[in-house]
Amino acid sequence: MSRYICDTLASLAVYTPGEQPQGREYIKLNTNESPYPPTPGVISAAGKAANTLNLYCDPECRALREAAAESFGVSPENVLPVNGSDEILYFAFRAFGGAGRSAVFADITYGFYPVYAAVTGTAAVIKPLKPDYTLDPSDYIGADGTVFIANPNAPTGIALPVSELERIIAGNPDNVVVIDEAYVEFGAESCIGLIRKYRNLLVTRTFSKSHSLAGARLGFGVASEELIADLNKVKYSLNPYNVNSITQAIGIAAFRDGEAFDSYCKKTAEVRGYLSSELVSLGFSVLPSSANFVFAEKDGMSGEELYLCLKERGVLVRHFASPRIKDRLRITVGTREQTDKLIAALKDVLSRKD
Amino acid sequence: MSRYICDTLASLAVYTPGEQPQGREYIKLNTNESPYPPTPGVISAAGKAANTLNLYCDPECRALREAAAESFGVSPENVLPVNGSDEILYFAFRAFGGAGRSAVFADITYGFYPVYAAVTGTAAVIKPLKPDYTLDPSDYIGADGTVFIANPNAPTGIALPVSELERIIAGNPDNVVVIDEAYVEFGAESCIGLIRKYRNLLVTRTFSKSHSLAGARLGFGVASEELIADLNKVKYSLNPYNVNSITQAIGIAAFRDGEAFDSYCKKTAEVRGYLSSELVSLGFSVLPSSANFVFAEKDGMSGEELYLCLKERGVLVRHFASPRIKDRLRITVGTREQTDKLIAALKDVLSRKD
Repeated sequence: MSRYICDTLASLAVYTPGEQPQGREYIKLNTNESPYPPTPGVISAAGKAANTLNLYCDPECRALREAAAESFGVSPENVLPVNGSDEILYFAFRAFGGAGRSAVFADITYGFYPVYAAVTGTAAVIKPLKPDYTLDPSDYIGADGTVFIANPNAPTGIALPVSELERIIAGNPDNVVVIDEAYVEFGAESCIGLIRKYRNLLVTRTFSKSHSLAGARLGFGVASEELIADLNKVKYSLNPYNVNSITQAIGIAAFRDGEAFDSYCKKTAEVRGYLSSELVSLGFSVLPSSANFVFAEKDGMSGEELYLCLKERGVLVRHFASPRIKDRLRITVGTREQTDKLIAALKDVLSRKD
Repeated sequence: MSRYICDTLASLAVYTPGEQPQGREYIKLNTNESPYPPTPGVISAAGKAANTLNLYCDPECRALREAAAESFGVSPENVLPVNGSDEILYFAFRAFGGAGRSAVFADITYGFYPVYAAVTGTAAVIKPLKPDYTLDPSDYIGADGTVFIANPNAPTGIALPVSELERIIAGNPDNVVVIDEAYVEFGAESCIGLIRKYRNLLVTRTFSKSHSLAGARLGFGVASEELIADLNKVKYSLNPYNVNSITQAIGIAAFRDGEAFDSYCKKTAEVRGYLSSELVSLGFSVLPSSANFVFAEKDGMSGEELYLCLKERGVLVRHFASPRIKDRLRITVGTREQTDKLIAALKDVLSRKD
């Protein structure tokens, strides 16, 4: 750090992404990536778009917004494509938060919410999840500020039905309610159908997981025209060309190949069932997941130790240090083969503990 | 706009990018794009990287930073790749500006500086250029805040020698000095060689123009390790995966093909000489440009009218409404063929005026 940095940043705790190891090859089940490569249509769209990279991308992302609107069942004016869904979450904190305002979210949820609150000067109002890690909707009715709910939640994987989320949205006419649907395609219900009814609802999406595009950085905000206009003000005050030409082209191709990605998500849900039952038979408690990961713990074992033992055996999973979840592991649902290797590694770890 | 937006954003004047017309085909000389497509090496790097998009990009951009460091003659710790150089400029305002701090820049310069000042709550201290549009270095010695100088300047195209810039950098031990080198490869001297000597110097670069990659969004910050650490704090508090996998791969390929891009820049400098002399022979006054554009006016003609007449004839150039430059046009240096078409269109406009 230099002596020139401003005070808010100097004291800020930033976000720590999951390990992206270089060198040793791991079975990588730590960052909720899809184990399936993008479709041939997506790959060829990338190569084609590269030919005209000397020209700027369309800052309005018109063709991509049209494809998204058709797929989501909304109008292009309801869609804002972004450089990964982290960006739209930041835009929301920037547009609807700030000094003198609050953001309301769970104690156990996506780790970027508290960072965005701090960096935008928004007060964080934390609502602890219940002991079983479910969220109590009544904690969010008539909230003190912008509401952020990940559904399914991360890292728990637990989802609320749309009927419960609608109670929260309807119960906050004076606040924007952000439903972060990063993992919705793996088994939860989407709130996108509610954006016509509720002008205060922002749904965020990402193609990182469901569409095998973590490396392409493509997310979306879906909301009423007025909220999209607010978020566009942030975009045009920061980085109007935020989504590059290749990512725009890839996104259009990915919408076109929607069925293939749906089948990837279905396959992941199947393997999730298998992984969960294998973990249970090894004595783990596993939360009911609607996402492409499970959140599991084994009584009497430290989460950190388990994480390190797996890493030694070439399997990376995600461990979080915060007290309520320090003995749990977030394990990405990979292929059936990767899952079998994980289970074998776990059996090896447990046999040496006995 | 919605009733939920925060006050600072509600009143903010955002940046207006140059027109990106869809539909009619224009000779596009309005956004300083390179007229030359990227190299075959760059195009094939994009296609190859697309195969593994299901995995996250390396948030630390290790391989790209190594390639950049080698090319710039610095260490990887001195380089921060970003999603277009607008992003690194924003990071600088965010890290070194903010409430109670100031940014010092010219009245006629890159239009994003005042937007970034406003959006970060940084006070803007404006230093008018001299009547001939040159910058007086003594205006910036012992400045009141972070100094931002585009060199060559935009939209004037006028460059300062490094010796003059070094006076400014050395004359601001208590401020960060940002030298925005978006156009430096077309004929100005770079300050990158000074970053070892001055810990307060940040040089920003973009591949949009010199490397025919406007659509790929790739820029760089080059500075002392401490300043890069500050800017990384901003990155990790906003969007750790800001540069996607394909853009990282493309960037590495573009450094490898550096000679080809050098020859594009040389060709552009040649066509710039031709364009300038043609404009002068049509009665225009043209500022001495070291960039890939010229800034020209014709006595007695409104800049806006000229811009509209050219647009009617299928040629897009950039017109700015601000008072001191409203009768000038910023014209991108295209190919020799595009330049001839522009000159023919101008002759047609002028003949009808007589």
